[in-house]
This record gives sequence, structure tokens and C-alpha cells, in this order.
Amino acid sequence: MGEQALIEHIRNTFYSRSKAVALGIGDDCAILRPRRNHEILVTTDFSLEDRHFRRDLHPAASVGHRCLARGLSDLAAMGATPLAAFLSLALPAHMLQTQAGRRWVDDFFSGLRSLALQHDTILAGGDTSESPADFILADIVLIGSAPIGRSLRRSGARSGDLLYITGSLGGAHAELAALLASNRPSRSTTSSLHPHLYPQPRLAVGSTLLRRNLATAAIDLSDGLSTDLTHLCESSHLRAELDASAIPLHPLTQKLPPQEALHSALHGGEDYELLFAVPSTTPIPRSIAGTPITRIGTLARQNKNKPLITLIHPTKATTELKPAGWQHFSR
Amino acid sequence: MGEQALIEHIRNTFYSRSKAVALGIGDDCAILRPRRNHEILVTTDFSLEDRHFRRDLHPAASVGHRCLARGLSDLAAMGATPLAAFLSLALPAHMLQTQAGRRWVDDFFSGLRSLALQHDTILAGGDTSESPADFILADIVLIGSAPIGRSLRRSGARSGDLLYITGSLGGAHAELAALLASNRPSRSTTSSLHPHLYPQPRLAVGSTLLRRNLATAAIDLSDGLSTDLTHLCESSHLRAELDASAIPLHPLTQKLPPQEALHSALHGGEDYELLFAVPSTTPIPRSIAGTPITRIGTLARQNKNKPLITLIHPTKATTELKPAGWQHFSR
Repeated sequence: MGEQALIEHIRNTFYSRSKAVALGIGDDCAILRPRRNHEILVTTDFSLEDRHFRRDLHPAASVGHRCLARGLSDLAAMGATPLAAFLSLALPAHMLQTQAGRRWVDDFFSGLRSLALQHDTILAGGDTSESPADFILADIVLIGSAPIGRSLRRSGARSGDLLYITGSLGGAHAELAALLASNRPSRSTTSSLHPHLYPQPRLAVGSTLLRRNLATAAIDLSDGLSTDLTHLCESSHLRAELDASAIPLHPLTQKLPPQEALHSALHGGEDYELLFAVPSTTPIPRSIAGTPITRIGTLARQNKNKPLITLIHPTKATTELKPAGWQHFSR
Repeated sequence: MGEQALIEHIRNTFYSRSKAVALGIGDDCAILRPRRNHEILVTTDFSLEDRHFRRDLHPAASVGHRCLARGLSDLAAMGATPLAAFLSLALPAHMLQTQAGRRWVDDFFSGLRSLALQHDTILAGGDTSESPADFILADIVLIGSAPIGRSLRRSGARSGDLLYITGSLGGAHAELAALLASNRPSRSTTSSLHPHLYPQPRLAVGSTLLRRNLATAAIDLSDGLSTDLTHLCESSHLRAELDASAIPLHPLTQKLPPQEALHSALHGGEDYELLFAVPSTTPIPRSIAGTPITRIGTLARQNKNKPLITLIHPTKATTELKPAGWQHFSR
């Protein structure tokens, strides 16, 4: 399989029609036709071997899934609907020449494809290259759309708004820690209960928040709650008070000591849940699109005597929460 | 300079306003607002060290320039107007910690920025990461727009159409060959007469072809005339006859033996000129937007007794021209 064969393989695997994709793989550019009165949202994310994944630990299907999930989650955070994805993929030369290498590529695309199908996302183009070193390099672009002026930004929250999150936190960190401790490749190829290997971007929640005009601001929890809430506070020029006992912990954290479980939830990162702000007068259901929604804190005017984020412990004692989010691992 | 500082540096360097970019760097996604009744064009291109450039030969400003030029040229080929660029950049860790490394990054962005300014292209987002190995990795996304249904594709040419190119060919290959032979870094930081180091994407020609409805099909010459004309013929289900003596050779090829000069023009690649098809009844000026335009051949119905591309030599003898385009160099 050469580079041209790889492109053909991708084209055949992902061939599909869509009103939004007027022209897919095979010309100098792809052509997208968003709906009238919609704006275009664009996000790009690297997935680099040994920075974002390890070939010896992550199943190839998980690498493909996570590569797409990162971009889809950015669209979800803004309430956008995905139109198309573009993948740039560089592979070490030997991977196209060995059976194991070709199987890796097949599994990578099958993981990416099944998540893409789930969210009506078409792979409409990209680039391929031989990798300059023995590392797999991927960069994904997601393009989505939303009605003009309605996209959820980090900057729209107001003092008095309440903070909510989808799902539960800490699971991705707990699963990754277990994976690193075992130091053996995971054989898992299914997505249920694998918050690290197969995170679920919250597109249905994001688009519901936008459609029903529920949220004033939103962000996805990719770097960890402490870091991403800091971004939201800084963008909205507000401070936050976070109720530690309200934060829903993922079942996988239950094997950990309580302090460590909370630490995973606050700083673990890569849970890809949504954090959003809602006016206190707006009623929020307990679940949206089947995903549980939990209130975890409030936003207030910045005050030089108060930290940007105050963590309220179960004892009612308060401490400052500093951003200490996820640093991508390396060997 | 850490990763956050790098992002700040990029944001400050490229800060600018545009009607088309409603939200740039700093949220989960950028927001673009194309003009009403326009479609969106998307292209992505890797620029990987040792595959697409060499740190010991290419000035950093040239690497930045070429990174953007590849994407802009794809937009030019379809007649599109650039709206925004997105850059994913992974740097070896030591580059952000040494003065030489920081200078490289500054020069890279200055090369990218000056071409971006020339074509009103805003850097609206991207991603950064530490590179997993001692290689600089870049991936650029260009987003452009064109009136709905008017983008120039490879597939629209008809039998009897004439083939034209912009500018001259072989220069990029000739300059690269000289660079490789000298095996010394080029000190050049200016773009005049450096078809390899500072190629000029033909955006003004592309948009004129579209606006005046002159071309039935177009492609940019990135892989070499023999390969790119093959793509155009295959997409349009036509064959081509190419007049070797009509092909304008770049001045830098004049030091080469005639056969080698022609070889550079036919197969050299990376000239980033446009190749386009025009109905024989449509008059084409000798230059468009200041760029010379030259007729180099004709298109005809496919015929199983004739090759996809026939090269007509000055002696009137004919041979088959097979695609033998550019393979990116590696050490």
C-alpha cells in the first residue's frame, strides 16, 4: 500500500453524500455549503504519537476515535453541528509495507469512522505524508455550523450565573492511570465505560443548549476543570465558586482514595464533558439528550480579595483552586 | 517561552480584524462568516521537516512562506478568495528554550505573516504541541470562499478546450537542485526570483478566471505538470496533447542542458503555477493580473489508441508523457 493507495482506501471507506459537502476528497479543495444564515466554526487538533497517545498502549481504534473526538468536542462546546472533518496523517514508511502496519491503519480508520457515522460527520479531505521519524502524526480539522451569532462562547457568562457540567469527571484520568500502571496494551475495542479510550463528545447537549438558548457561555473539559474553568472565568471577566461535594465523580474513580478521586476530577483532563453557565432564573433539566446535568458552582464579579476560583470543601472551608490541568504525557 | 507564550506570540503577531472572521484565536473554535450565497473551500497541507523542508537548507522565513503558499495555491486553483488560515505547529522542546530556536520560530512566523498580509489571510487559530522527536511539524488549513457553484474544479474541462498555464515552469526544481548541490543554507530572505524558496500563489489569476467565467477546469502545479495534467485529464475524462516547445521555461532553468530544463518543467513540481482549460472560442489575454499566460496544449476525447498525455516535440515527433511528478525529498 503506497500513499496513493492509502488515499483511495480513505476515500472508499468514507465515501458518503451530504447536502453540506458539495465536493469531497479528490480536488485541490473540498467544497462545503453551510445552511443559509449559518456561521462556520473551525477547530484543529494534533494527535501525535508519544504526546497524545502511545502505540504500545492505545488500541488503534481508540487513537482514531480520540483524534476525532477532540475536534467534535470543541464543536459541542460551541453548540455547533459538525459538517465535515479533514485529516492530515503521516505514517512511518514501514507501516504501509507490513501487515501489522496496515492493520493498525485499518483499525485507526475504523475507530474514527464509527464515531464519525454516529455524528453525521463526513471525512471530506486532508493530507497524507511519510512521517519523518518513527512516529505516527495526525492533525484533525473539524468544521461545523451554527445559526449566525448564536454560537456559545467562553466569554458570555454573567455574574450570578450558575455553573453546570455534563456527565461525571475524573474517569479519563483514572482509566489512563490504570493503563499506564499496567503498562500493557489495552485490548478494548468497545466504547462503553472507557472514558479515556473512547470519550463521547457531547454534541447533542451542546446543540440543545444553543437551540433552547439555555447557556450564556460554554467550554469543553479537555485540559481539566481547574484549567478550563479558569479560561471561562478569564474570558467572561468573572470569578467562580466551586462546590467540591457537588462534582459528580466517574465510577472508575471510586477505587481511588477520596482525595485522589477529587484530584482526578479537578485536574485530570480529557473527560470531554461540557462546562456551561446558565442564568439563575433559567430552569435546567436533570438530563439533556440522555446525559445527566449537574450544578457545581456559581459565577460572580471579580474581586481582588478573592481568588479566581474558590473551592468550597464539604466542611465549608474554602481554598483557592489554581489551574493545574492536564499535561500531555510523554515517555 | 513555553507553549502558552508561543500561542500569545502568535495571537499578538497576527491580531487583525476582518468581516469574515467573527472570532479568532482564544475559544474552542474560531467563527467565520462567509458572504451570503458563497460556498466554503477547505484544504490542508503538511509541512514536515525532512519531508517538505530541511532545517539546514531552508531559511525559516521560507519554511513559513511555503507552508502558507501550498494552501493558498489550492485556493487559487479553484478561484477562491482566502478567508482564514489555521496552523498546527509542533516544535522540538529545545527550540522554545534556546535563542536560536526562538529566532527560528520568529522568522518562520515572519515569512508566513508577510505572505498572509499580501493576500488578506488571517491566522484565526490552530494547535501547538511539543514535537515527539527532533523534527518541526506543521499542518496548515486554508479556508476560502467563492460564489455558490462557481468554484473551478478539475473535472469541468471539455473536449476541444485549450490548455493554459500561468508564469513559467521548472524554476522551483532548478533552485532546489542548486540548493541541494551547494548543501549550504540559503541566506535569502527576499522572494523575488526564488521560485522554490518563495513561490507566489496565483490567487489574483484564479479569482479573475472565476469572475470572468473564463476557465472550465483548473489545478495548481504542485506535483509537476505531468502529474497534475494527468489528474485534470482523469477528472474531466479527457486526454491532452502538450506542445513541448510552447512551455515557458523559468530563467533559472537556462543554465541547465535543454533536455534537463524541459524535464524540470514537465516533472519538477512545486512551481505553484496554475494549469487551466478554456473553450477554444474564449479569448484569453496574454497576461492576467500581471502574470503572463501561455497556451501549451489542447484537450480531446479519450481514445484507447492514444495515451492520456501526448507530448509533441519541436521536431513534431510525439511521445507518451507519463506522470512522473515530484516526490518530496528526504535525506
